[in-house]
Amino acid sequence: MIARVIVTPKPVVNDPQGITVKQGLATLGFREVSDVRVGKYIEVNLEAETEHEARSRVEAMCKQLLANHVIEDYRFEIDMDGHKRR
Amino acid sequence: MIARVIVTPKPVVNDPQGITVKQGLATLGFREVSDVRVGKYIEVNLEAETEHEARSRVEAMCKQLLANHVIEDYRFEIDMDGHKRR
Repeated sequence: MIARVIVTPKPVVNDPQGITVKQGLATLGFREVSDVRVGKYIEVNLEAETEHEARSRVEAMCKQLLANHVIEDYRFEIDMDGHKRR
Repeated sequence: MIARVIVTPKPVVNDPQGITVKQGLATLGFREVSDVRVGKYIEVNLEAETEHEARSRVEAMCKQLLANHVIEDYRFEIDMDGHKRR
């Protein structure tokens, strides 16, 4: 199955990448953009017996490695069919 | 409204970040992980009259700045309510 994890900077945390992208978009003429935030998208292929087990394992991965919980939030969804969608 | 854009390395493209994360997970004991791919998640707040207009503007942003179409794929969803979900 596949877990699709999204890690984003917490709202109170500065996001220099987002500011740079916003400025780049403005330079290109996209002046309707008021804010940009940049995070990470992580696709994890894993084996698990049940969705519940997968969920608990991916939760542990986020806490231990994928996200820095001081400055980042994370969320994920589990796709049991596991079709790769890249 | 908010556009949530996901940019991923194309399947044929090497993803050293993904390999590193996979090795890190294995070191931590997550041996059920067979593959990891790392991409970008970009949240764009923008003004637009209609969903159709927003879609066409975000498509243009992806082509011109957000994704490198030689090595990356992208997809996005438009959230008309625009609740910030970080």
